[in-house]
Amino acid sequence: MTTYRPVAPGDLDLICRHRHEMFKASGRTDAMVQPSTDAFRAWLKPRLDDGAYFGWIAYLDGIDAAGLGMMVIDWPPHPSHPLQSRRGYVLNVFVEPRVRGRGLARALMDMAMAEAKRRNLEYLILHATAMAMPMYGKFGWRRTSEMAMTLPVQQSQDG
Amino acid sequence: MTTYRPVAPGDLDLICRHRHEMFKASGRTDAMVQPSTDAFRAWLKPRLDDGAYFGWIAYLDGIDAAGLGMMVIDWPPHPSHPLQSRRGYVLNVFVEPRVRGRGLARALMDMAMAEAKRRNLEYLILHATAMAMPMYGKFGWRRTSEMAMTLPVQQSQDG
Repeated sequence: MTTYRPVAPGDLDLICRHRHEMFKASGRTDAMVQPSTDAFRAWLKPRLDDGAYFGWIAYLDGIDAAGLGMMVIDWPPHPSHPLQSRRGYVLNVFVEPRVRGRGLARALMDMAMAEAKRRNLEYLILHATAMAMPMYGKFGWRRTSEMAMTLPVQQSQDG
Repeated sequence: MTTYRPVAPGDLDLICRHRHEMFKASGRTDAMVQPSTDAFRAWLKPRLDDGAYFGWIAYLDGIDAAGLGMMVIDWPPHPSHPLQSRRGYVLNVFVEPRVRGRGLARALMDMAMAEAKRRNLEYLILHATAMAMPMYGKFGWRRTSEMAMTLPVQQSQDG
């Protein structure tokens, strides 16, 4: 029996752990992920407190076994959402390896879709790990044409 | 001889026209693009006035022949920008068809890169038209794993 609950401020460490494990599952080491996990924790805390970051946790077999986070981000009006200056962003989707294949990701995504409809969001985005991309394809997500570039920087936190 | 200048509040209509033509160049009709162009204009005006939207215009053969826009968007710290909670976003890149192949996009992108370095931005994104994707590849941009989904909505502008 799986139960689902909305994330709450007390889930700060759990969400950070899920995000950390998600990035490790995409081929990164602990050492590669830890700096962003630490910065993400400081970034997340006020947003989890005020509800700007929301989402759901799946509880199964005595553990918080999976999670999904969501935000509404500002975005210029675009042909895919012509009258809305915002997008829904789904992030930190993670399912503990031992409970994969039991529909938890699907159930969490259904909650995200229901919440998106409730908020009248027209356009949603996410970034998929290579492993998860086929699953999202089955859920109806399609790849975009986003491209990225990394630049060398002065390493100091900008908050 | 091509000259370049930063965008200014008086470029509101020009930028909207470039964005409109850019979306038409990706296979959309005027009728498909116009609602988002109108909403984008209202969205852009205050951001062009206060500098949240910035960029450059190329002037050549007596016309404002090309343009590129840029913003700094909030984003959770991520392994690609572990200590920064922001990304640079490049948008509205458009070159008039009759002056293509003369290096204007490259020159505009070099200005965006220089500005990104000046602002110490570690990670930049853009969304490419199918036509422009190979060009961005040559400039060093790489596709991301972004995926998207469109949902049915109540059509009313949300500002």
